[in-house]
Amino acid sequence: MRRPVPEGEFDLIRRLFAPLAAGEPGAFGLADDAAVLLDTDFVVTKDLLVGGVHFPKGEPPGRAAKKALRANLSDLAAKGAKPFGYFLGCVWPKGTTAGDIEALAAGLAEDQGAFRLSLLGGDTTLHVDKGGPLTISVTMLGLAPRDGLIRRNGARAGDDVYVSGTIGDAGLGLRAASEAKFLRGTDARAQLLDRYRAPTPRLSLGGALAGVAGAAIDVSDGLVADAGHLASASGVAIDLDAARIPLSAAAAEWRDGEGDPAAAIAYLASAGDDYEILFTAPATRRRSVEMAGQVTKTQITRIGAVRSGAGVRLIGPSGAVIAVERSGYDHFSE
Amino acid sequence: MRRPVPEGEFDLIRRLFAPLAAGEPGAFGLADDAAVLLDTDFVVTKDLLVGGVHFPKGEPPGRAAKKALRANLSDLAAKGAKPFGYFLGCVWPKGTTAGDIEALAAGLAEDQGAFRLSLLGGDTTLHVDKGGPLTISVTMLGLAPRDGLIRRNGARAGDDVYVSGTIGDAGLGLRAASEAKFLRGTDARAQLLDRYRAPTPRLSLGGALAGVAGAAIDVSDGLVADAGHLASASGVAIDLDAARIPLSAAAAEWRDGEGDPAAAIAYLASAGDDYEILFTAPATRRRSVEMAGQVTKTQITRIGAVRSGAGVRLIGPSGAVIAVERSGYDHFSE
Repeated sequence: MRRPVPEGEFDLIRRLFAPLAAGEPGAFGLADDAAVLLDTDFVVTKDLLVGGVHFPKGEPPGRAAKKALRANLSDLAAKGAKPFGYFLGCVWPKGTTAGDIEALAAGLAEDQGAFRLSLLGGDTTLHVDKGGPLTISVTMLGLAPRDGLIRRNGARAGDDVYVSGTIGDAGLGLRAASEAKFLRGTDARAQLLDRYRAPTPRLSLGGALAGVAGAAIDVSDGLVADAGHLASASGVAIDLDAARIPLSAAAAEWRDGEGDPAAAIAYLASAGDDYEILFTAPATRRRSVEMAGQVTKTQITRIGAVRSGAGVRLIGPSGAVIAVERSGYDHFSE
Repeated sequence: MRRPVPEGEFDLIRRLFAPLAAGEPGAFGLADDAAVLLDTDFVVTKDLLVGGVHFPKGEPPGRAAKKALRANLSDLAAKGAKPFGYFLGCVWPKGTTAGDIEALAAGLAEDQGAFRLSLLGGDTTLHVDKGGPLTISVTMLGLAPRDGLIRRNGARAGDDVYVSGTIGDAGLGLRAASEAKFLRGTDARAQLLDRYRAPTPRLSLGGALAGVAGAAIDVSDGLVADAGHLASASGVAIDLDAARIPLSAAAAEWRDGEGDPAAAIAYLASAGDDYEILFTAPATRRRSVEMAGQVTKTQITRIGAVRSGAGVRLIGPSGAVIAVERSGYDHFSE
């Protein structure tokens, strides 16, 4: 009897794949984005992006490749690790041209320059004519200061919760990429599209947070969902103050045009692909957190608090909990 | 104007991707299967397998997953490296069931036990309903004795050329998997299918060859094609003696049923997926090579010689060069 997959991706990983990593303490039971190998300072991340899921199907290959690199760089950033190099695997769809492959390589070369990376090896499958989408698999190696790696499980009751940059722009950018009419003719549209297409991994901030942040995660599944991952790994609850969630001018403009401000903020806090860093630190470290933001010229906002318990609550201005319908981000769907 | 891809995979890598690895000496200009990182003893390989290309589309997921692990293990074996763990990325096709994912995990668990491996992390994409094939991306980490890594570029004129095991079985197994009538009802059919489906990476032999072999490569594209990669990386020519190429009883039986023995041996020497180790060693090391085979209980056959020049020749019993039509292996095609 054929059964549909009964559970979400995270439950599935926990049930089927985490046991396979039980022999290696450095794999953290797959509850983290990276694995630390032996006693060395190497950190490895792997993200695989599929056309039509993680980027639109017609996306130029150079842009898709950059997004694949940046998603992995963002994982390293949240660990406080410095990128070293990466392995690349590609599956090319039917009708791929030499120009497509050249465009991918050119995109990679641009980001290698921007982030001082080297390609280290990989594998590419050209002879696919079965109609599958472009698939880009990146395994990224980073270096972390010994004992300085920021994990997901270091949040403690009483800690402050912070986030870098602004939240929800990429989610609105995804709508702009999917809906031609969305915010048509506004400057906001171009800005939001750019945030979705070319996220900026917070590498320098991540480095500055090593030794300061108790726990960190990059916001890729959505602010509330990723706060949930962090809370779950740390065995704590997190309250987020909806009014404090930092919005760009473009996102604030969109929110102001919506009828229900609470629903609008819930939407932004559950959209993904922000690639900001969500982190916790004891209240005694507020000055250090501020310094990390100043030194790296990164906006940092205190948006909540860690308490004992479990789960994440998004608290509105009146003190009422705002319901967040989508617990995770479904990426692009056509 | 849309141009078809004008060149083969290897030329394409050389032209477009090798420049991206120029900044990292340890990436060997992508002319090798693995990269060595900094001065550490880590070795990393990455192979990506696509349903309908590297394994038949209806292949049970557990078997496909094992093949993905073993292809990477074979790359490590040819380096003389010991496997440590791996990162996994999967893209699941439309209609994937929980049973499919469980079968994949069970296959991985079996081979983890057999090869003492741990899953270290990864990424899986479940929500694909665009009709792409099952895709399995493995990035494998290994450990090599410092300064003991076997490269592709150490072959010198006058060296002997050896290969482990037998050649061509997997190529015939692929035909058996594609053609229901091929060798129907024979024991040979089952043996050849097994060689194609569950290749055995030569890990213990690889370890024993560290410090003995001058150059090595695993035979995945085909004996002649991989000898060509080794010759090209070393700047030498290789002559292979067709009569010395080791065949299993099943492959010899098939050859004897073919009309043209030279064409038959050319076929076997150009089929891929053998996952044997092709290596070179100075004639002064013949005793050490023999010992490596004995200690690891692996059949080793001397099949040729390195000379100055370029290219690979397959020499028949009469001394005439046997033409090999297919320069590389096209994997499974439906």
